[in-house]
Amino acid sequence: MAQERKQVTVPMRVRYGESDQMGVAYYANYLAWFEIGRVELMRELGISYAETERQGLFLPVSEALTRYMAAAHFDELLDVKCRVGEVRTRAVRFEYELLRDGQVIAKGHTVHVCTDRDARPVTFPDWMRSAFERALAAET
Amino acid sequence: MAQERKQVTVPMRVRYGESDQMGVAYYANYLAWFEIGRVELMRELGISYAETERQGLFLPVSEALTRYMAAAHFDELLDVKCRVGEVRTRAVRFEYELLRDGQVIAKGHTVHVCTDRDARPVTFPDWMRSAFERALAAET
Amino acid sequence: MAQERKQVTVPMRVRYGESDQMGVAYYANYLAWFEIGRVELMRELGISYAETERQGLFLPVSEALTRYMAAAHFDELLDVKCRVGEVRTRAVRFEYELLRDGQVIAKGHTVHVCTDRDARPVTFPDWMRSAFERALAAET
Amino acid sequence: MAQERKQVTVPMRVRYGESDQMGVAYYANYLAWFEIGRVELMRELGISYAETERQGLFLPVSEALTRYMAAAHFDELLDVKCRVGEVRTRAVRFEYELLRDGQVIAKGHTVHVCTDRDARPVTFPDWMRSAFERALAAET
Repeated sequence: MAQERKQVTVPMRVRYGESDQMGVAYYANYLAWFEIGRVELMRELGISYAETERQGLFLPVSEALTRYMAAAHFDELLDVKCRVGEVRTRAVRFEYELLRDGQVIAKGHTVHVCTDRDARPVTFPDWMRSAFERALAAET
Repeated sequence: MAQERKQVTVPMRVRYGESDQMGVAYYANYLAWFEIGRVELMRELGISYAETERQGLFLPVSEALTRYMAAAHFDELLDVKCRVGEVRTRAVRFEYELLRDGQVIAKGHTVHVCTDRDARPVTFPDWMRSAFERALAAET
Repeated sequence: MAQERKQVTVPMRVRYGESDQMGVAYYANYLAWFEIGRVELMRELGISYAETERQGLFLPVSEALTRYMAAAHFDELLDVKCRVGEVRTRAVRFEYELLRDGQVIAKGHTVHVCTDRDARPVTFPDWMRSAFERALAAET
Repeated sequence: MAQERKQVTVPMRVRYGESDQMGVAYYANYLAWFEIGRVELMRELGISYAETERQGLFLPVSEALTRYMAAAHFDELLDVKCRVGEVRTRAVRFEYELLRDGQVIAKGHTVHVCTDRDARPVTFPDWMRSAFERALAAET
């Protein structure tokens, strides 16, 4: 029986202030867009940012990569896709695609480390690790 | 004897990502620039944001006005001027000017209310109110 | 016969990067959110930013005011309302409200001047002025 | 005779609006900070963004990577270092380090493709390629 890897697709529209004088979306904004997908994926996995932070757990980013394939422009409607790419004891990797009319115009990933309030890396609590692993489950 | 109203002038350079497709600095950025001046003024008055927040005091903004007189552009060197405009029991008003080559290209003000951690308005502690009032002192 | 003033309501969600260390949405972001409403209102009035800029017409902001009544927080779903407030020969005023669960948490306005490519104020072309005036039409 | 690789170091201060509710600088801002270094390096190499764009040449980013090693916080004074990492016929790679008190807290790189106004990749003009290569020159 096949089980698909959990993935969210969130529609978003490029804002005017996100354009730069080259007439395209400024490159730093893609990381904010990726986060829109990450937040939704976390929500679907039952991992609320708010709840996590209240428990004294944080997921600061340790690496972020973006590959820009075609420019995004003001007012375009894009889709942000996000899925879990890999889960380790204290770190999780998310993968992203940005699409316009079904065509991938950017992709990337971020790696996040689980830390306590004092920014010390800690092991994921079981409930969080299980949630990420369920998201990864591919085939059985 | 005349005493001048305390005012800071902080130089800053317009970033590429702050430009928009009209080829000028996006209008929301001015509020971030004004804050650069506000932070420096507060520092000179001996009111550190960090210390204030550790004491459970916050200064959320209740009003922000900007008048845009001439556009700012990428890479321009600007000066942000900030001074205290008015102090009340629970609120303070800051005034700003943005200059390019000595010419004012934008001005504005913000009003901030003193609150506790739960966002309830509170009276300024004496040390903070005195600091704001010293900044206001004009002539004697 | 009464005709209602044209108004758009656009839902949006507060992004993580829009929060600041006070735990609330940073004050400059409201201007970007107001613009989300303005873009939609313009679209409904048949005034596309892209088309306008291609015609060599620009609507740079000359004034922006925001009144912050209650803080917005990460992940909250808000509604941005925008309508035309006043139309003059070379300037237009937009009015905004930001709502959470039907309650206004911020309001504001922006004034925009019609200019040519060289930032010289020009009279609105008829089609644009008519569009703004239709949006204003209140009672007859 | 040894010639050092050209490198710029630009001081900058973390803004309040760049913090997020985790109390640290939001991850997308690092790309804007890297650009501060890139702009200064380009300036020292005699490659002005403004001039380049007037000539119809653009350097859109095709890849951006950031490794976050320690968090940056509001009001900290940081140094952005930028140097040319590699030059190819139509692409250039910049390398960045972000330092606090001399300690590297983040590093990264961006790759930029030379394009014309229509976003078609073009070969670097000689003057630009030479400038990048001079910046690379290590030992002779």
